[in-house]
Formats: sequence, structure tokens, C-alpha cells
Amino acid sequence: MRIAPQEMRDAFFRVLRKYGYDEEEALLSARLFTEATQDGVASHGLNKFPQLIEYIQNEWVRPQAKPLLIYEEGSMEQWDGQQGPGDCQAHFAMNRAILKAKETGLGLIGLRNTNHWMRPGNYGWQAIEADCIGICWSNTAPNMVAWGTRNRIFGNNPLVIAIPDPEQPLVLDMAMSQFSYGKMSIYEKEGRSMPYPTGYDQDWQATTDPSETLQSGRVMPAGYWKGSGLSLMLDLLAAILSNGKNTREVGEGDWETNLSQVFLAIDPRAPEQKAHLARVVQNTLSELLESAPIQAGGGAPRYPGQSTLQAREKNGKEGIPVDPDIWRKVKSFINT
Amino acid sequence: MRIAPQEMRDAFFRVLRKYGYDEEEALLSARLFTEATQDGVASHGLNKFPQLIEYIQNEWVRPQAKPLLIYEEGSMEQWDGQQGPGDCQAHFAMNRAILKAKETGLGLIGLRNTNHWMRPGNYGWQAIEADCIGICWSNTAPNMVAWGTRNRIFGNNPLVIAIPDPEQPLVLDMAMSQFSYGKMSIYEKEGRSMPYPTGYDQDWQATTDPSETLQSGRVMPAGYWKGSGLSLMLDLLAAILSNGKNTREVGEGDWETNLSQVFLAIDPRAPEQKAHLARVVQNTLSELLESAPIQAGGGAPRYPGQSTLQAREKNGKEGIPVDPDIWRKVKSFINT
Repeated sequence: MRIAPQEMRDAFFRVLRKYGYDEEEALLSARLFTEATQDGVASHGLNKFPQLIEYIQNEWVRPQAKPLLIYEEGSMEQWDGQQGPGDCQAHFAMNRAILKAKETGLGLIGLRNTNHWMRPGNYGWQAIEADCIGICWSNTAPNMVAWGTRNRIFGNNPLVIAIPDPEQPLVLDMAMSQFSYGKMSIYEKEGRSMPYPTGYDQDWQATTDPSETLQSGRVMPAGYWKGSGLSLMLDLLAAILSNGKNTREVGEGDWETNLSQVFLAIDPRAPEQKAHLARVVQNTLSELLESAPIQAGGGAPRYPGQSTLQAREKNGKEGIPVDPDIWRKVKSFINT
Repeated sequence: MRIAPQEMRDAFFRVLRKYGYDEEEALLSARLFTEATQDGVASHGLNKFPQLIEYIQNEWVRPQAKPLLIYEEGSMEQWDGQQGPGDCQAHFAMNRAILKAKETGLGLIGLRNTNHWMRPGNYGWQAIEADCIGICWSNTAPNMVAWGTRNRIFGNNPLVIAIPDPEQPLVLDMAMSQFSYGKMSIYEKEGRSMPYPTGYDQDWQATTDPSETLQSGRVMPAGYWKGSGLSLMLDLLAAILSNGKNTREVGEGDWETNLSQVFLAIDPRAPEQKAHLARVVQNTLSELLESAPIQAGGGAPRYPGQSTLQAREKNGKEGIPVDPDIWRKVKSFINT
């Protein structure tokens, strides 16, 4: 089943207005949910929308809360999200970073007490739209095993790096776990093993069985100790730069809220910098895309963001594929 | 065999003076080489010193080259290293970032045309000494397989993140490959398999045999596609922010030079920020250090930088362990 982007956006907009969003935030959030779904990331678009409504109904997300400026100095700012809608707040914060970058060359924004920002890549694409380099990350509730321990005390803390090449923009959007919950669920449905260890089973043995990891919740960091260490540092940096909560403190709540996030934008406006950017992106990506796949018959190499643009174009023309049950559920929010 | 730190430092200093370093750079470089070795990273300290001398003899490292300011705006600067000594240049660049941070809150420095910076963590510890958060990374020559391809076109691009807690400073120092060449060599000498795949053998099969990977040079990225994607983005960012060469262009030379690096320092001086930093570091690390190891009899969990401080203290008291052959070689440079 496929839905036209405009129809999807209208549905999200109507639901959000009904649940207390101002017009501006409802338009923005409806666009971000639709774009994520159109770009092939339904797990952080359409499929996550019902959970957002549940959070709003429980007053865990506060539609009327606006970011509050806490501190400003030079190219840096700190904002308090006051538990408002995570996607709108993150968009606001990246926009502040971009404005600072246009003014001073770069902008570094710490945002605290915010909610789940939905698709992390949103804010990378936002920086690219503004011709800026964008780097941002969020902490999360504890949802990953700290390397070497039995304790699920680290977050999978998604990290985004975006480079605004006009021809081949790049957006890396990666969590610190080796596999996302969404990816594990897909493999589980298809009855397949993961190609690499994804977590630990009930006996604390590494397993490639997605069901075992989904049941235990014992997700393994990407690159073992490397993803674990990077997760730790990104969490601490987010908490420090926003004067906000760290993963441990987020985990003390009964649901995931009061997250801390960082947004860095850089305007590449030094002499010759834009031409230089285009040159190094072009010569690196051409070498990558022309590389022989490691396995005979293996897929062609790709760069971060490439498949996003392909999905965006295809689904813009043909309509956005949806899970009919979830789409029905979203539409039901309009009338209930 | 153990050498007192002061004796090691004196030997490095005398060799560097002989090979054309000014007194200031010779003192600095001798200190950095000694500290890396004392901190337990001989692979990027003492053991790398003979290669530096070879590079100087071949005029691939130019002892008299000083960084040249190319561009400055607000909190950002670009410098050209003119192929000077990589450790002195990186130290200079992190110092510029720190000075900017003390002045404006943060400093972002791009450094191009520099040489191997030896132990990456040096510049994280330098930021910590100045009570700053420090983030830096370098590109490298192509030395790692790009995920999904047969081509060794990406670098292992080391990344450093440092957090200046007075009690428990943290320094993450990680390359984008799953294992370093140094670690593989140690396992090879001991005749052991690596605990996880380290690269590809001659038939492009993943292998845990360090000899196979050392022979093929086909090093695997940490976390498979994740380390590969992060390596790509760090390389492009380093090249763009310094207007310098990317890994592909570095690889066109006959030896590794003209590297691009980025140095970010942040002064955590927003209201309450230092106390907040100490609190989140303390509560995160206490939870980690009290965690049960995943295997019965497994080692206690550690945080990035912890073992560095332990080695520093122990080797400061007992002397720094050295490979006698390499130590003899370093001393021979004084008289040859």
C-alpha cells in the first residue's frame, strides 16, 4: 500500500493539531514524519507516530512547550526543551546552530530536557539545505550493554554527520549499537539470523538470533569496545554541553524523556572551501562507487545518504509504502 | 628493561636536536614521545621514534617547518603545517584551539599538510591539562578496506575525545579499524588468534588470524559498515575544514604525509557547568566500574583513559618498560 506524500502530511498535520500542536509545529512535525517515511525510514517516521500520540496523551510530550534560552556566549548557546516535541525542538536547535554559523562561521547548541527526536538524519538534511556542515547527536535511555559488563547502562546514542555537497550530499546517521531494534525486528519477521552478533542471549552468550536479543534487550555495541566507548563519551558530552541529564539519569525515569542533545553547524566559507569540498567529495565517492564488491555478486558500494535520496525520489513518484495497519491507526486518531 | 622517564626524555631530546629540531620543538617532542611510552603506548612512542628519524633523514618531515596561518574567523582558524613534525604541529593546533576556547568559549582549528601526530591521545590529555573538552581527529593514508568493497581506500583515521574531570579525566583514543596494527603484531608474536575478525585473507575471507591480515593489509573497519562510514566522514571533514588533502590524495604520495587534522576545544564555563560535568562523570563511571563483568572471572570494566593513568603512575615510579633493541637503536642515533 502506498500513500502520496501530501496525503500523509495532511493526516499527520490534522492529528497533531487535534492533540494540541500550534499550526507551525504541526506543519513542521508532519513534514518531518512524512520525509522520514518517504526517505525509507518508516521505523522513525510513520511507524513511530502512534507512540508519539501515546506520549502526548500521557503528557510525557508537551505540545505547547517551547525551547527556553539558558545561556549564550559567542558561537555557543544552551537551550532547555521543557519536554516539548523532540522533533520540533531538534529542528529549532539545528536552526539556531545554522544561524550562528551564518553569523560567526560556526554554531554549537546544547539542548536539554527534550524528547525523542525521531529520525536523527532529519537534522543532517536540514544543515545540508542551509549549505552547512552539520554534526549532531542525542543521548537515550539505557538500552545497550556497556562493553565487558552485564549491565545495560549505556545508550545507543545516535550520531549524525552531514556534508553539503550540491551533487552528492552525505548524511551519516548511525546509532552506537551494531544493529537497531528496527533492523532486528525485520530479520526476526523473516526468520533470518543476523550476519554478525547482535547481542547476548539469556545465558550471556553472544548471539546472531534477533529474537534472543529482542527478548533479552541485551544489545551489543557496534565494534564491541569501540561503540561502547564512543557511546559513553557522546552521552557525557551531550549532558555537559547542555547542562542536562546523562543516560543514567534519563534511565531513572519510567519512560524516556529529558534527553540531552548537541547540534554543531559549520558554514564552509573560508576561501576556496566550497570548491575544495566538492572536489574531495567527488574524488572520494567516485573511487568508492567504482570499487569492486568484496563478494562475487555482492551489492555495489554505497555512501551514507545515497539510498535516502534514491528512496526519496522513487517514493515521491510512486507514493510512500506503508504498513496498512499503522496507517489505519494514524487515520483513526483524526476521529477519536 | 626499564628506563627512567628523565633519561628517556634526554635521549629523545639529544637525537632531535642533532637532527635539526630547535630547542623548543625538541623539548616538546621528547616529552610527548616519553609520555606516550610511559602511558603504555610504546607503539606510538618509543617504537615509532626510529621511523621518525628515517622520515627526517629522507626530508619527508621538515624539522624547521612552522605552522602558517591561512585563515581566521571568529572561533575558527586554518593552518598549514608545511610538512613539519606532526606531533609538534598537532600540539600547536590543539593549543590554538584551547586559546580560542579561553577567549570565545570554543575553538575549531583545521591543520593541513602535516605529518603523523604519533599518539593521538597526546592532544586529548593536552586539552585536559587546560581544563577543556578536546575533540580531534586525523586522516591517514589508505590503510583499511572500505566496507563491502575489495579496495583498501579508507584510512583508520584516529579520533580522540577528552573530558576534563579533575578526579577521573576521560580520553577516548580510537582508530576506525577494529584492531590496530600494533595489537595484531602482539597477537601474532604470541601465536594467538584475534577474538574477532580483524581483516580479510588472500581469498577475501574474514579472518581472526593476525598474520593473515598483517600480510594482506586488508584491515576491517570497527563495527563493519559503521567504522567504514565514520572513517569516510572524518576524512572528508578533516580535508574540508583544513582545505587540505583527503585520504585518497594522501595515498597518491609514496609515503604518508600532507595529512589533514581537526582540533576542537571547548571551555566548559557556562553557569554550573564544571560542577555538572563532575556530577555526570562521577555517576556514570561509578555505575560502570561497579558493573558485573560479562564473563565469570572477566576483567573489571574500565573507562577510556583509566589504564593510561595507571600505567603513567606505575612506570613513573618503576621506570618505563622498553624493547631493548629499539632503545639501543634510539641511543645509537645520538652518535651516528
